[in-house]
Amino acid sequence: MKKIAIILSGCGVYDGAEIHEATMTMYAVVKHGGEYQVFAPDINQHHVINHITGEEMNETRNVLIESARIARGNIKPLSELNVSQFDAIMFPGGFGVAKNLSSFAFEGENCSVIPDVERVILDAVKERKPIGALCISPAIVAKVLEGVQVTIGQDKETADAINKMGGEHIDTTHGEVTIDYGFKVATTPCYMLDATIADIAEGAINVTKAVFDLM
Amino acid sequence: MKKIAIILSGCGVYDGAEIHEATMTMYAVVKHGGEYQVFAPDINQHHVINHITGEEMNETRNVLIESARIARGNIKPLSELNVSQFDAIMFPGGFGVAKNLSSFAFEGENCSVIPDVERVILDAVKERKPIGALCISPAIVAKVLEGVQVTIGQDKETADAINKMGGEHIDTTHGEVTIDYGFKVATTPCYMLDATIADIAEGAINVTKAVFDLM
Repeated sequence: MKKIAIILSGCGVYDGAEIHEATMTMYAVVKHGGEYQVFAPDINQHHVINHITGEEMNETRNVLIESARIARGNIKPLSELNVSQFDAIMFPGGFGVAKNLSSFAFEGENCSVIPDVERVILDAVKERKPIGALCISPAIVAKVLEGVQVTIGQDKETADAINKMGGEHIDTTHGEVTIDYGFKVATTPCYMLDATIADIAEGAINVTKAVFDLM
Repeated sequence: MKKIAIILSGCGVYDGAEIHEATMTMYAVVKHGGEYQVFAPDINQHHVINHITGEEMNETRNVLIESARIARGNIKPLSELNVSQFDAIMFPGGFGVAKNLSSFAFEGENCSVIPDVERVILDAVKERKPIGALCISPAIVAKVLEGVQVTIGQDKETADAINKMGGEHIDTTHGEVTIDYGFKVATTPCYMLDATIADIAEGAINVTKAVFDLM
């Protein structure tokens, strides 16, 4: 049975992992006959956002502990992810990717990516293991892998930043997947487009199929 | 287009709404051609649980604000739910149902159900609108509707409590739905069984189909 490492960035679209994308990625892995292990970094979130008002809350939350809500407690620190023990790695989206796994939300093309994320992406490429990335996650893959072809949909500002980081952005719409066969990277826009939850399921299933096909 | 009110109880299985069940219910409604509006009570959670250790955290969180994470901000207070404006109501599971929407986790068959939940269940029955309930939620439906036939799977203690409250529990397994045609209540066990996320999708889709068929 193929083993997929799914990397989360919190729990909630505005300060963490996007919940529908994370859930649908887990579902798609199981539907394709695989199994998953969830990981997240053991660091504090950049901030905590009230998801009704959009305002910052005066709280501190930990990315690993909050991600455990999506994983139903079955989660490991990202520092323990040894890519050689998995067949692929996948990144659902959400602002947590751009705020906790990297500084892309604040620094755009000049962002940094946290060392454990950089390490697992580079190890995946070195070991010829596929990488799947949804929503905004392709941006951090592009930051690490110079020249990679990815999609985040059609958002011009984000696409421009990806191109400036040395990536190559391809415009796509709902459910479409961009595959870079050299790096074995499959990407899909999900909620980077104005999408329904059915679009998210379709995108997650399609990008997961691409990841399995790349193995 | 049929409009379904989905009622959440927080964000995370151990102190709120079960995330996979909530997500798959939203997905199933859209897949069946419906649309949904999410609601949750504007009250504090009973407590906050660290989903890795299972320990209580010294924090206070609000059920409506945390539920908004699953709803991507598109949520209304349960006090504003007017059942006459919807075609059905649905309750995903999670301990939040038994800790925030009711006291079932602490008092079993002697539990109370919060007034807004009791009101919307009674209004649904009065208006002949179907009620769908997943996982542990059928227990609070049974507390409100004496004599209703429901399933929470095969957990003997919970089934006994449902029977003592005046309900009638039917044993079921993955993906099965119990339908009470008199009350128009459809229930399915989901994570009340030892389930995979694919089982949850199947249960959510099947119970949602039953809800649509009961309209």
